[in-house]
Amino acid sequence: MVRRDVAGRIFPVILSGGSGTRLWPLSRAMYPKQFIRFFDDQDSSFLAATLKRLAPAAGFAAPIVICNNDHRFLVREEAERAGVMPQAIVLEPVARNTAPAAAVAALLVAHTDPEGVLVLMPSDHVVKNEPGFVAAVRRAGEVAATGRLVLFGIAPAGPHTGYGYIRRGDPLPGFDDAFVVEAFMEKPDRETAAGYLKAGGHFWNSGIFVFRAQTFLDELARLDASILDAAKRALAEAREDLGFLRLGDAFAKAPAISIDYAVMEKTKTAAVLPIDIGWSDVGSWSSLWEIARQDADGNAVRGQAILEDTSNSYVHSERALVATIGVENLVIVDTPDALLVADRARAQDVSTIVKRLQQAGRKEQAQHLRSYRPWGYFESLSIAPRFQVKLLHVKPGGKLSMQMHHHRSEHWVVVHGTAKVTIGGTEQLVRENESVYITATQWHRLENPGKTPLELIEVQIGSYLGEDDIVRRDDVYHRTPDETK
Amino acid sequence: MVRRDVAGRIFPVILSGGSGTRLWPLSRAMYPKQFIRFFDDQDSSFLAATLKRLAPAAGFAAPIVICNNDHRFLVREEAERAGVMPQAIVLEPVARNTAPAAAVAALLVAHTDPEGVLVLMPSDHVVKNEPGFVAAVRRAGEVAATGRLVLFGIAPAGPHTGYGYIRRGDPLPGFDDAFVVEAFMEKPDRETAAGYLKAGGHFWNSGIFVFRAQTFLDELARLDASILDAAKRALAEAREDLGFLRLGDAFAKAPAISIDYAVMEKTKTAAVLPIDIGWSDVGSWSSLWEIARQDADGNAVRGQAILEDTSNSYVHSERALVATIGVENLVIVDTPDALLVADRARAQDVSTIVKRLQQAGRKEQAQHLRSYRPWGYFESLSIAPRFQVKLLHVKPGGKLSMQMHHHRSEHWVVVHGTAKVTIGGTEQLVRENESVYITATQWHRLENPGKTPLELIEVQIGSYLGEDDIVRRDDVYHRTPDETK
Repeated sequence: MVRRDVAGRIFPVILSGGSGTRLWPLSRAMYPKQFIRFFDDQDSSFLAATLKRLAPAAGFAAPIVICNNDHRFLVREEAERAGVMPQAIVLEPVARNTAPAAAVAALLVAHTDPEGVLVLMPSDHVVKNEPGFVAAVRRAGEVAATGRLVLFGIAPAGPHTGYGYIRRGDPLPGFDDAFVVEAFMEKPDRETAAGYLKAGGHFWNSGIFVFRAQTFLDELARLDASILDAAKRALAEAREDLGFLRLGDAFAKAPAISIDYAVMEKTKTAAVLPIDIGWSDVGSWSSLWEIARQDADGNAVRGQAILEDTSNSYVHSERALVATIGVENLVIVDTPDALLVADRARAQDVSTIVKRLQQAGRKEQAQHLRSYRPWGYFESLSIAPRFQVKLLHVKPGGKLSMQMHHHRSEHWVVVHGTAKVTIGGTEQLVRENESVYITATQWHRLENPGKTPLELIEVQIGSYLGEDDIVRRDDVYHRTPDETK
Repeated sequence: MVRRDVAGRIFPVILSGGSGTRLWPLSRAMYPKQFIRFFDDQDSSFLAATLKRLAPAAGFAAPIVICNNDHRFLVREEAERAGVMPQAIVLEPVARNTAPAAAVAALLVAHTDPEGVLVLMPSDHVVKNEPGFVAAVRRAGEVAATGRLVLFGIAPAGPHTGYGYIRRGDPLPGFDDAFVVEAFMEKPDRETAAGYLKAGGHFWNSGIFVFRAQTFLDELARLDASILDAAKRALAEAREDLGFLRLGDAFAKAPAISIDYAVMEKTKTAAVLPIDIGWSDVGSWSSLWEIARQDADGNAVRGQAILEDTSNSYVHSERALVATIGVENLVIVDTPDALLVADRARAQDVSTIVKRLQQAGRKEQAQHLRSYRPWGYFESLSIAPRFQVKLLHVKPGGKLSMQMHHHRSEHWVVVHGTAKVTIGGTEQLVRENESVYITATQWHRLENPGKTPLELIEVQIGSYLGEDDIVRRDDVYHRTPDETK
């Protein structure tokens, strides 16, 4: 029996805007942290797990996801995998931190249900005790119904310097487990953090918020009307596109500010509900090491590795065999095109590397060797001056745009499934172990008409092999010219 | 003007038997250290450099190379690149350390020139001062002519614990720069080594020897006749094969022992010629770091890397971008299928890793992703349960065996050059940007009839893709069935 009476008014709102730079090289701008499986026993991505955590099947309202335009097809795919269909996938034209996104979500919920309650949460956190979390959300909903903006306070596991802290005040009237927020404290040094733990009554700020839509909108109107105004206009201008809700450009008028700074630290209505649910924000390789299964020497390994006299290290390899000798406290993350070796205590500084890569215009900051597309993905297997080999993976029903290249010919060998190939107006089916040839300047299109994935090897030959040698028409995914292929 | 009168009687003998395990993962059993270019500015492999160092063009006799059967085509290729044709490439049926190989070489030289002098040297050392080395060899030849077994003593650059040491005695009669050997010392601890340096008159044992063939053979007959006997019988049974000299199986009867232990440490005729020629045995990643160009922070980098707060480290990447943060004294060597991260002081222990890989039967111990063949090489680009993609590179004139697979079909797309393809008795030329299809059970052969390398992408499809699904005939390289393809 689901308790629709309470939970049905609780609207999960998932903010999927972060790019997770501190988990590079696994997390990259075009395929960040929330879409990745970091553990061998992790059966879904952080985003899918977040969607499932407060699922309609458990009686909650269908969620709202707010994300970067670049990630829209990935979000939909994870939602399909999770078996949870959002009531809206909202696309931000530009990133504006969390407050403007929260305003948009609150407006959407208020429109659906004037008494609706939002659970605003990041897409990329870990919660070990899922039933505990669900119970906490229900309880927070009850607190929020009294007109409070509710924060989840995490019982601190140690004097961590990577989180903001909340100090609780008196219990709320009528509640013995929820408290007035007395103060917010920025990330402290270790000594200060230790003082908080000793004193008691201090919690990590989890970045998860529960409030009635109307309570939040009223506070926002009072504290920063410009955010609310931009959110309202962005929604008024919004248009539906293939089931996504594209916010209008007015969204860009909102200041880029977090909900913490814009509202929570100023409001008089904040409350904190302490919880202890095995929560982690997985904010760095070091915190992944902390929550991963470690061997007797304190090493956490994913992938193939031979460790010799090695301790307290995190080793993650996508493909290569990793051998270590006589090292300790290292983070080693190996991918086919980028390797990170860092002192574990310096794991937070990975964002510095990402910034340097960004400035240098390096593709390793944005893309993996495998590039995801709405129709599936492709992976570059070999690049030479005059030829390139790619693996193309097309999902059942996937359909590439009709396209043409000026400078390259393509040989396609189907290695799994069946392809529908259109060349110069003529359609044909190409089966496994068959090949087809497309000469430069021929219009062509590839589709997977089948029920299983289609995989083919593409051998490109030509004097110029850039991704931008492509003329396209009739793209079923409505992509702009700079969203290649 | 070359001085044939002296140098023409000096026969360079290169022992190419080592497998260079301490430089894994770059050095692997099937493609070890002597064939690799480790530095960006290194225009030839260690073996090619060794061949060129005492070339016939400088008046020396044509060299003799003794190597492992697995490496015979690699040796010939490096000799071709060096422009130095050995008078013999001798193949050992089994490895027996250096003394038996030296006996074979001395017998060959004595047969050619009864007064001939050998310069016996490893294939994988670095010599910075090449003219100095040539002059030293000539001088050593003069000492050897007096009936001495001459060692090169390297002026120690520091109290290194990785070398054996030689203590010199009195000057030889008639020489002021060559000395009687007073004692050999095993690899010492640091304190003992420092004592040697302080005392003076101590040298590193370089493993390079100069002696008249007959002197050595006489000493060997006296000290260990079993070695000489096995060498004689191995030569008597030897047969020519495609220009290689294959020793007979009697070679296996020789004990596996080094020339140092078998002869040098026992003979009364040893002499040492101190030299200072920028020599290194490049015996570990640490010694590569020592001789490599370092930046202001003491880092030596080959390949793409971004170093953040990193010092005294060696970074070598074949393909991936390497990022480091807050580390020091590390060796990081990244290849597409294997990564090493080691404390620089522990670099010698890489052989422990290699041993573990060997015991586990891991291919990363023996092979790179790129596998060398007498006709060129192939590289696996992608492996899946039912298909595999390879790049094949065929040298001009290269010719694969006539072959047939029971379980896989092959699609070949020529991406560079022109292929001569025989399928079921019919020959055809396949040009760049053309493809050809070979179905399972069809006999087929691939050749490069052209003057430039042939490159093609092979897409294999089938239920079984092992290298051992191959039936072969008419192999122009006379390979045994277990030397695949």
